[in-house]
This record gives sequence, structure tokens and C-alpha cells, in this order.
Amino acid sequence: MAGRHFLQIPGPTPIPDRLLRAMHRASEDHRSSAFPTLTRSILSRLPHVVHQTNGEHFVFPSSGTGMWEAALVNTQQPGARLLAVRFGQFSHLFIQTARNLGYHVDVIETPWGESAPVDQIEAALAADTAHEIQGVLLVHNETATGVTNDVGAVRAAMDRAKHPALLYIDGVSSIASLDFQFDAWGVDCSIAGSQKGFMLPAGLGILGMSEKALARVATVTTPRSYFDLRPMRDQNARGYFPYTPALSLLFGLDDALTMLLDEGMDAVAARHRRMAVGVRAAVKAWGLHECAKRPEIASNTLTAVVMPEGQDASRVIDIAFKRYDVSLGAGLGELAGKVFRIGHLGDTNALTLAGALSGVEMALVDAGVPITLGAGVGAALQTWRVAP
Amino acid sequence: MAGRHFLQIPGPTPIPDRLLRAMHRASEDHRSSAFPTLTRSILSRLPHVVHQTNGEHFVFPSSGTGMWEAALVNTQQPGARLLAVRFGQFSHLFIQTARNLGYHVDVIETPWGESAPVDQIEAALAADTAHEIQGVLLVHNETATGVTNDVGAVRAAMDRAKHPALLYIDGVSSIASLDFQFDAWGVDCSIAGSQKGFMLPAGLGILGMSEKALARVATVTTPRSYFDLRPMRDQNARGYFPYTPALSLLFGLDDALTMLLDEGMDAVAARHRRMAVGVRAAVKAWGLHECAKRPEIASNTLTAVVMPEGQDASRVIDIAFKRYDVSLGAGLGELAGKVFRIGHLGDTNALTLAGALSGVEMALVDAGVPITLGAGVGAALQTWRVAP
Amino acid sequence: MAGRHFLQIPGPTPIPDRLLRAMHRASEDHRSSAFPTLTRSILSRLPHVVHQTNGEHFVFPSSGTGMWEAALVNTQQPGARLLAVRFGQFSHLFIQTARNLGYHVDVIETPWGESAPVDQIEAALAADTAHEIQGVLLVHNETATGVTNDVGAVRAAMDRAKHPALLYIDGVSSIASLDFQFDAWGVDCSIAGSQKGFMLPAGLGILGMSEKALARVATVTTPRSYFDLRPMRDQNARGYFPYTPALSLLFGLDDALTMLLDEGMDAVAARHRRMAVGVRAAVKAWGLHECAKRPEIASNTLTAVVMPEGQDASRVIDIAFKRYDVSLGAGLGELAGKVFRIGHLGDTNALTLAGALSGVEMALVDAGVPITLGAGVGAALQTWRVAP
Amino acid sequence: MAGRHFLQIPGPTPIPDRLLRAMHRASEDHRSSAFPTLTRSILSRLPHVVHQTNGEHFVFPSSGTGMWEAALVNTQQPGARLLAVRFGQFSHLFIQTARNLGYHVDVIETPWGESAPVDQIEAALAADTAHEIQGVLLVHNETATGVTNDVGAVRAAMDRAKHPALLYIDGVSSIASLDFQFDAWGVDCSIAGSQKGFMLPAGLGILGMSEKALARVATVTTPRSYFDLRPMRDQNARGYFPYTPALSLLFGLDDALTMLLDEGMDAVAARHRRMAVGVRAAVKAWGLHECAKRPEIASNTLTAVVMPEGQDASRVIDIAFKRYDVSLGAGLGELAGKVFRIGHLGDTNALTLAGALSGVEMALVDAGVPITLGAGVGAALQTWRVAP
Repeated sequence: MAGRHFLQIPGPTPIPDRLLRAMHRASEDHRSSAFPTLTRSILSRLPHVVHQTNGEHFVFPSSGTGMWEAALVNTQQPGARLLAVRFGQFSHLFIQTARNLGYHVDVIETPWGESAPVDQIEAALAADTAHEIQGVLLVHNETATGVTNDVGAVRAAMDRAKHPALLYIDGVSSIASLDFQFDAWGVDCSIAGSQKGFMLPAGLGILGMSEKALARVATVTTPRSYFDLRPMRDQNARGYFPYTPALSLLFGLDDALTMLLDEGMDAVAARHRRMAVGVRAAVKAWGLHECAKRPEIASNTLTAVVMPEGQDASRVIDIAFKRYDVSLGAGLGELAGKVFRIGHLGDTNALTLAGALSGVEMALVDAGVPITLGAGVGAALQTWRVAP
Repeated sequence: MAGRHFLQIPGPTPIPDRLLRAMHRASEDHRSSAFPTLTRSILSRLPHVVHQTNGEHFVFPSSGTGMWEAALVNTQQPGARLLAVRFGQFSHLFIQTARNLGYHVDVIETPWGESAPVDQIEAALAADTAHEIQGVLLVHNETATGVTNDVGAVRAAMDRAKHPALLYIDGVSSIASLDFQFDAWGVDCSIAGSQKGFMLPAGLGILGMSEKALARVATVTTPRSYFDLRPMRDQNARGYFPYTPALSLLFGLDDALTMLLDEGMDAVAARHRRMAVGVRAAVKAWGLHECAKRPEIASNTLTAVVMPEGQDASRVIDIAFKRYDVSLGAGLGELAGKVFRIGHLGDTNALTLAGALSGVEMALVDAGVPITLGAGVGAALQTWRVAP
Repeated sequence: MAGRHFLQIPGPTPIPDRLLRAMHRASEDHRSSAFPTLTRSILSRLPHVVHQTNGEHFVFPSSGTGMWEAALVNTQQPGARLLAVRFGQFSHLFIQTARNLGYHVDVIETPWGESAPVDQIEAALAADTAHEIQGVLLVHNETATGVTNDVGAVRAAMDRAKHPALLYIDGVSSIASLDFQFDAWGVDCSIAGSQKGFMLPAGLGILGMSEKALARVATVTTPRSYFDLRPMRDQNARGYFPYTPALSLLFGLDDALTMLLDEGMDAVAARHRRMAVGVRAAVKAWGLHECAKRPEIASNTLTAVVMPEGQDASRVIDIAFKRYDVSLGAGLGELAGKVFRIGHLGDTNALTLAGALSGVEMALVDAGVPITLGAGVGAALQTWRVAP
Repeated sequence: MAGRHFLQIPGPTPIPDRLLRAMHRASEDHRSSAFPTLTRSILSRLPHVVHQTNGEHFVFPSSGTGMWEAALVNTQQPGARLLAVRFGQFSHLFIQTARNLGYHVDVIETPWGESAPVDQIEAALAADTAHEIQGVLLVHNETATGVTNDVGAVRAAMDRAKHPALLYIDGVSSIASLDFQFDAWGVDCSIAGSQKGFMLPAGLGILGMSEKALARVATVTTPRSYFDLRPMRDQNARGYFPYTPALSLLFGLDDALTMLLDEGMDAVAARHRRMAVGVRAAVKAWGLHECAKRPEIASNTLTAVVMPEGQDASRVIDIAFKRYDVSLGAGLGELAGKVFRIGHLGDTNALTLAGALSGVEMALVDAGVPITLGAGVGAALQTWRVAP
């Protein structure tokens, strides 16, 4: 097919041409005297993306999900007890990862489409007077449902409970897109990947650690090698990595940081909000519902759209991909077939989303969902028009 | 601004990523024993794009307009008399070029927005019983007005008038997008550039010559050097060029030919027709008019949209560019300020055009043109929905 | 500095322009119906690189060293006993990784510069009549010393000892460059990375597993998540990955496989042998010694050159990098300061190596090593001249 | 063949990766309000490359040789009389171009390998008391023979003869590599292309014009269109071009100017001198002669090497290309088969040239020329060693 494909899944996101160029570079010697300049440029600027002054950032050749493991094995003893909320497929997988690694996880089950119940978290922690719970695992932005949690409120609950557990925040689909306050929210481990807000291909895991979390690294005896932060910290301090780094992705990350910080993280968040408002207006104009059960928890990086009863979302996704050159995200886990997901994060703009919404409209009509072509796009354009 | 710019002018057109990659190559020795493979791959396949078996094709480091000069100085004696139709800015410039080179041009003036009047051409040729007129200059697709001529009808008129003049067809905005029948239409010189249907950056002039035209090259004494076809033909025959060729663009052209011929020129033309139908439906839904005065002459590669009386098209173009990240073509010559032009040729698709139309809609509303947001896009989507 | 840098370390190796282009691509939906084509193209062809018909191959977003961990945690119970030979920095790190993961490793200490002592391996296995040793860890090509082991001989020793231990071969600096016979050598786990013979940036771990090794995956209870082969195998079988794959590197790997298999693995090995012969001739002409103690164990992918007594290799490396635009590998571990290493693997050729040797010559002279400029290069050219 | 090809012809020259990246960009609207920034960045900085404050610079989609025509048709009336020196193939072609365009050229014939005879130029001008000669055509650096002229001396001769002719300098293989003093030498038209010192693909002609030359543009009546400077100047003044510019090459040129001016033109010239000294040392060590008959006229951008009597240079070039992956320039015109040419201009360095010289050495030996392998390279390294 001629023309560009519209990659409108919640990640990987479209890679700006500028970053593709930044990665199109000859290899270099990762042990040369010139190399630390790159390492330091990246590691010194990553904290700015999440407003972190407390602690350090690390980059691994890994998927974002690898950082779940990196965060846990470096800070928790074998068999430690953790608390988590399950409210979507990615919170589910975070829990599974912890269990696969031998941790004991207390799970607060929450309906998918809802946000994490702060009161239940607080209650669980308050009840744990012996402080057996060593960590709280929370997905900031649940990519399966399009729901964003209020991490600050969770931190406040922890503080009210006077509970010393570490706070692990999966920000894979929020960091570098949504407002993320590492310091203010008292985050101990922030988890991200290169392929969403950072606008790069997948392949880099990005891990923020507070001083409190870092203090555990030396004492924890969990067997570990690849994700062991001890040699990583040693080498990073000198500007190097303990094994050959994924250099092309680092070149890209370095320039992605320049793009993000030049724009400013507040502007980045505002831009994502603006894009999301338009997409939500389109969903409403189609007469469909979002998976997010309340407007105030709706994510600004993706929207999960619930199909009318009896309609199969997979068919819409398949038609959209094959006939109209747009990729949409499928429903995952218990939402399989029930929702399709529109990503609106990273390097995109109103016209690209208008094109994508146009593809969704044609696919919906083809699938037999009775909407008026142009209605959703028009509603979105109404929000995207720039006030004169 | 984040996201992709929508380049929706009638050329240069968006360059497919594949062609950008094809041009991203180390230089090579244009005199090496391996080089003729590339030359031959290009020169042997260019004729297929225009259904040419009669004659040869040539490629110059030049803009497309340079081929106006190349065609004339290689086939017409100084001061020769030519016949041309003026019905837009590019037919005007073709005439000016001929005059700048010292030719005498009889001009049939035609309202802009109309196509070339075949009957007047026939009459002029029939009246020229002495056969003083040496050539007929015709722009196939007038990029300023969005009007396509029926070249076959012009050829039929020439045949009816039994006139031996050479037929020069500017196909800059038609070749490799619209159906072009070099043999069937009895074209003597076809003129194209790399930056429209060929989907490349500007920088290559592409010239097709019939045997009849080629026979003139050796005998014509017009002073010429850069565009002289004699050394070009000599060198091409051996697989080389008389001076260093624009190699990166040749790498691109070679792959563009593969893309076009793999798709098939009939499919390419059908695809452009389909895109154009949608854009015209949008214009109609906006309640606006096309510059092309009759549906049957409306171009499938671009649409010039006439602004309502008293409204300035430049303002719409400026708003679209600055606020919504879409480039539109301006009105040229006598149409300046009166029309904006939407390019829909080359590497594009329905969703990209839906995005561009969305940008036009917002810009129109911002400029005070009372349209309903989504109306044009919806009308276009109606035509683009794939019949199940 | 103008001109190209000469990256002559033993990895990462120079990335061919073709592979840089292959990676310069828009992102894609890794869950689309079209995606399995890529997965299968890679996973079905990786075995050909190592002549494997027994078992499967896997690709992780990881460094090559991550595959040490992946191989072990998927096939060995916590605390299992393993046998390894230490004869250089990378065999040392392989042992360290196993110990970090909680395994018990019996180590056969061998002088650096020597190859693994097959007789001692055989003796150790023969003495283990209870078959407590669960695995033999061997680095095929020790990147620190430029020594290649005879894996077939090790396999023969294991067979003679009738020992059932799994055979783990680190082929990071040999696979895709040197002859590697997965089936014939009875390898159970082959370990590679993208940044050496595969000519790509680092970022992909490549793991081959025999059926015998795969049979262990389901039964072993070692806690694991990121490197767990169970979900990887499940997803791979359907053409997908359990988490977002490092797509740009996969695009590169797919084309690297085409390059390698089009050339033929025998031709690839022969080409590396030819390059190595020239470099060794240069070292001899300089009057210097290789770290490899015997010609028959000298590696065809890199040469570690021993500095004259009292001379510091770091100085040569530093001068070469800063004055002459060539990167050389440093001595590692106990060889620090004593050797410099010249990589001659991956996408290189005689003239590139001649340029690199020229840089080495100038750096040696600058550092006070009394060689004749041109002597080493001339000796190398003597071997590289093509027999007429 | 694996590894990089060594492109060691006197142009096109190797394109730095940075410039390939700069050209790998989406198309843009060349009529947008943002476009003039690019035009001005280029046109304001081109004069700095040749130390020009007198006049303006222009860029055409054209080969460098197109600028011969552009310079002449914009400044000389039809049939004007010109004076030129023929001392190699490119001076020959410059003369031919002028004659093809209808000019009358007085030619001072000079042995190939010699420089232009300043005394004969002076004598010819002095004898032209009626000032019939309108222009002096001179190739600064004769790419066929590797000879550089002293343009300042020619200007002094013109001044001594008090002759008002315009001075046309072909700097295709000198500008942006060798010292070029537009103002100080009183140049009226400087002629260059993108594919040599500017390190880009061919496709851009670069023309410098003095005020005196520009004054002729409006008055000269020579028929012209493509190369007509009148619309070019008009459009350039507003930041645009009269026809679609070769945008990808302009992106490249803009960044090439940054590279050159950041390095500084004096440093660029010094770097070329250093590279040339090494190559000449190699030629001497081989016992061969340069085509340039005197050391003081030997070019710093290329060296034409004369084959021993009875030996065919084409064979060396063919062997070098096919066996050793290095492209050398052939002998042109009367030097065909007698010389091969080594380009050492643009983005190259000592190690690259050492590699190329190594290829030449092997090819020479293969062709039966009795040289010692390594002798030339060693002699070059002697000159390239950095004084401590």
C-alpha cells in the first residue's frame, strides 16, 4: 500500500525521523576515552524527565518489563512480601513477574477500568503493623485499560499508614508523556522502556532508583547477574557499562532527551492532554464508551474503546489494519475482543490522530457499528482547533 | 511541533522511507566497470512508466523545468515557430521558456480552469498549410489549476490536420501518477521531474524522446552544451553519463521505478483516481468549488479549491502551515490569493489525506469560512470506504 | 577529524551501511497479523549460522552476556555443580556469572594465552562418576587473549568420559565469524550477541538450545522471569514475543542473516581466516608476539599483541585513538597494559585492515617501539595479494 | 565483498555519514514561510568558503560543469571572444563548452602535466589592445593531471596587461579543499560542484559571481532559460528559488558548510596538503613519477601517477577495483592508459589513504610493476606520523 502506516498502538510509538537519524551511526568503541561523554549526557538527564533529584537512573539493554525484575532483585530479599493492585493486564504481569522471582504478593483485586483503590492500599498497609510488606507495586498508567492512577495519593496513603515499604511504580506508558513526580511522590523505583514516551524502538529498560532503594542494593543477597546494579553503578560512575551497551539505542536516547527537555516536561504533558481530549471527544461522538470508568482517571496516553455488546473488537482491528493502514491495540486478558485501544502518545499530532480516527471510523462502519463517518473526527477537530 | 508534517502540496511529494533509504548510500565511481548496471536499469525501465516503445529516455541533473529547455534546444532550430496553449501558470512558464530561448510561440489563450481547446489547436494547425509551426507545446496536467488535458484528443486533432509538428508534453505533475500513453498519443518529447510521481526529491529532469524527435538532435544547430543530447546519448549507450551524475538521486530513481512497476502503472493511476475522488467529495461537502471548471477535466493529482468571494486563500494556507502542520499549495499567477491547492499525488493514502483535510477544515474555520468540522472528511471517508 | 574512524576492536564491529539502512525503519505493531513473518524469518535461519538442526534458537533484548544467565537459569537447578576452564577474562566472567547466580563451579585454571586443556576436562569428568557435574562451560574464542578452542575435541572428551553434562559454549566472538558446528560438536547451549559476527549494534542476545537442553526448561525450578524460555517459546511458536521486542535490531538481524547465508558460512569462515593471516604476518614483521601461545590456537577474529617488556600497551592504544583515528582493544584482567588487541572480524576487508595496521605502526613508533614503518603492512599485503 | 569500498577517485568523494544523515530528511514545501531560512543559511555562507566579499553565490540543480555554461551565458554576448589555456582534459572540456555555446576561444596549448603559462597569458592579453577578448577561462586545479595553477599570478598578469576581461575560474576540484581567494585573486566567476570538496553527491552546481560579472547579467542578451541568473537572483533575494530546488542536496550543503567553516578554510587546506604530501612520498618510494612535471605545481587534491613505459594503467585500475575494493581515477584524453589518479580530497584521513595506497601496491605488483609491498605506505606513514 502507498503512503504511511498509522501506528496508533500504545507503544511502540512512531519514531521521529530525527531519532532514526540519530541512531543511524557507525559503531564506536564503548571503552574509549571519549565514550563517557555519552554515558553522562544520558544518565545526568534522565532524572529530569521524572523530576528526580533523589537517587540515580540506570539504562539496560532490556525491554521495559525487564526493569520489573531489575527493580525487585536489587532491593528485595528472596521470598519477601509485597503488596500490589491488579486492575489490568500490565498490573497482572507485574504481579506475575514478582511471583516468578519467588516473591510473595498480596493482591488487591480491582475491576478493570477502575483505578487503584487508595483506601484499600492504605488499609492493607495500616493492618501490616509488623511491617512485613516490603514493597508496594503499582502501575501508574494501565496500558490495558487506559486508566491513570494518582500516585501522589498512594504515597500520601503510605505516609498516613507510616509504612516503610518501597514504592515501585511502573511508568512504562506514562514516563516521558504524563506528569511524573519522582521526588514529590516518593517513588523508590520508577520503571520505563524506550519505546513509548521516549519515542524509540524497544530495547532499553530505564530504571530510576531512590537513595533508599539504592541502599538496599548492596545488602540484598538475591542471586542476580544481568540486572545486578552493583557492577552497573561502578561502571556508570566512570562513564562506562559493565557489558557492551546497546549503542544505537543510546544514541537515540541521548537525542530523545534533548527533544523532551527542550520542549519541557510540562509542555510534553500538556500536549498529551490536548491530544487525548480530542480522541475522547471522538469516542463520545461515536456513541461508544471508554474502558476507563470515570473521566478523571482516563489516560492521556491511550484510550481503550469498549465495543457495543455482541461486537468483536478484533474484527475492527483487523479491518483497520488490512484495509486502512492503521494499527490499533487489541484488548488484553479479560478485555480480549471487548475493546480496541488507540494510542495517542509520543511523537504524534492532531492531523495524525485525525487520520487515525478516520481509519477507525471506516473500520467501525465496515464492522457494522452504526456511526456517522466524520462525526468523531469532527468532534476531535472541534477540540483541536487552536483558540485564536 | 511533535508529529509528522503533512506535505500536501502538488510537489515535491512525500518521499517514502524506502526511497530515503535507497538514497542513503556511499558514493560510487561513476566510471567504474560496475556502473553501467545502474544506468541501464534506469534507462531501460523509465519508458515503461509512460508506455513508450518508440524512442529513448534521458535523465539530467536538473529540475523538471530544465527539460523544457532540453526538449527544445535539441529539436528546434533557433527562431523556430511553435504553438502553445496558455491555461495556467505552468503552461505560461513553458511558453516563456521557449521565448527566452529565442523561439516564436503562437499562443492560444484559454481561461484558467479550462482545458486546452482541441478545436482551436486543430484550427491553428489546419491553417498552417505551409507547416511553419514546428512544435506543439502542451502541459498535460496544469499544476496551477488542477486541470488535466486529453492528450490523445490533441494528437487526433494533429492527425486530422495532417500536421507534422512535434508534440511536446509537459508531464511534470502527471507522469508516474496519471495514465500517460507515450506511444498511443504520439508524444515526441515527454517532460518530467523526480519530485512528483517519482516520489523523490527534486534534482532530476526526466526526458522521453520519440525516434522522430531523436532524428532532429543530430541536425539541429541550436547552440547548447549542458542539455546537449549528443554526448548524453553516446555515453548512455555505454552505460555512463557525460558528466558526474546526481548519484544519490539515481539510486532513488532506480528503486522508485521498482516500486512503480511492481505496483503497475494502471494500479498507480487507479490509486490516484481513488484518492482524488475523496478530496473532491470533501470540497463539495464544504460547499466550495474547484478551480477546474468541469468534473471531467479535474485532475487526479491535485485539487485547486476556490475561496469564497472576498476571502484570502493565503490566510488559509498560512494558518494551516503554522497552526496545523500541513503545507498547501498557493494560487499562482492570476490565481494568487484566490485558490489553495491540495496535492494528492505520489506516496500517500486515504488516512494521510483525511489528516490533511482535517487540517484544511480547521484552517478554513479559523479563517472564517463557515464549514462544519468533519463534514469534508466524512464525505471523503464515504468514498474511501472499501466496498466489502 | 575528517574521514572515517577505524573501529578495530574485537566488537562491536563495524556495521555495514546496508544494515544501518535495514534498521532505519518506522516502528511496527509487534502484535499485528503481519508480524510473524519477521519472527519466523529470523528464528528459522539463525540455526543455519551454527549448523544446528537439533533444537531451537531464541533472541532476547539483551547483551550477549545476558545469554550466559539465560542458558543457566533455564537448564540448571539452584546450586547445581558446573565445570569450567578459566583462560582469559571472558571465561572468568562466565564463571563469575554462574557463581553470582548461585551455582557451584569447579574451575580448571589455565595460563592466559593457552587454550582449554582437553585432557584435564576429560579427567575431571571421568573422576565425576556420580555425574554430579551438570554442565561444562566453555568459551569457544577467548576475546581477551585471541585464542580459539577446539570444541569438537572437548565434546569427544566428554563422550569418552561418557558424561551426561550439558555443554555450554560461549560463541560471542566466534559465532557468525568462525566455523561453529552446533550439531557435530554436540553443543547444548550456544551463546552469542548481535555486535560481533552479526555486524549489528549490541542489544540482542542470541541463544541456541539443543533438544536435550530444551527438555530441562520445563522441569527446572530456578526462579526466573526476564530470561524465562517458557513464555518465549510459547510466543515464538505463534510468531510473537512475550514482550515488546527490540524491533530495529530485529530488522537488522533479519538482513544480517541474509548477508551471512548468501555468502555462506564456509566462505565467511574462510574470509576471516584470510584476514587473520595477514594481521599475524604484520605482528611477526614488527618483531612482536601474539598472546596466543601456539599458532594453531590463534584466533581468526582478533589478535592480542604482547608489548615488549616494560612498554605500556595503554599508551599505544591512546595514541592510536587520539592521533590516528583507530580504536584498538585494551588488555583485560591480568593482561591490562600488557597487550593491545586488533579486531579483524565482521564487516572488514584487507584495505581496512591495512589502514588499521598503518595506524598501529605509527602509534608503536610514537610510543617508542622500534619498528620500521610499512614493514607490518607490507607483510600483510604479501598474504592478501590475490593469487593470480 | 565484505567491508567498505575505498573510493579514491578525484570525485565524487566519500560522503561523511553526517552528511548522509543530513540528506535523509522528509521533503518540505519550498514555498513555505519557513523556507528562506535554509536558502539564506546556504547563500550567506558559500562566499566564506572562497573568501568572497565581492558579489554573490548561486546554487543550481546541475553538475559542476553546468556552471561553465551558467557563467558564460549570463555574462558574454553571443560570439564573444575568450582566451583559455588547454593543459588537461577539463580545461579542454571548458573550452569545448564555450565553443558549443557559440563563443570564439583563443587557446594557449600547454603540455599536459604543466601549469598554465602566465607569461603567454599576459602576452596574449597585452597584444589585445582593442580589448576584444572578453574573458579568460582557467581551470584552477586540472583534475586530469593533478596540476594546480597560481591564479593570483594570472590575475597579476591581467593587471599588468591592464586588460578588462572577466576571469572565469573552474574550481571544481579545488574549491572547499584548496586555498581559494575569490577577492584577492580578482575572480569574476568561480565554478564548483557539490561532489568534491563539499563532500556531497553530485547534483548541485555552485557559482560565485563578482559585482563586475553580475553587472553583465542584465545587459547580456544571450538566449538562456535554465541557467538564467535574473529570476534566480530575484527569487534568492526573497529566500526562494525560481523552480523546485534539489532539496535533499541543499540540506546536505547546509551542513557541509557548517563542517567546513567550523574546521576553518585554512585548516581544510592544510589538511589536504598533509594528505597529499604522504601520497607523493608513496609515489616516490614506488619509483614512479607524477604527471605534474614540477613539485611546486603538484595538486593537493589528487595525484596522477604515470605508469612505467609499456604498462597499461587501465589494468592497474581494473585489478584494484575488482580484487582490492579500491576505485582509482583513469587517465583521460591523451593520458588514457598512461596514468592512474589517486584522489585525496574531501572527507578522508591518513589511515584511509594508507588503505588505498595498500590497494594500489597490490594492484601494481599484480600488474607486474616491480615495487616492494609496503614501501609506499611506509613512506607515506613517515610523513603522516604526528610530530610529538
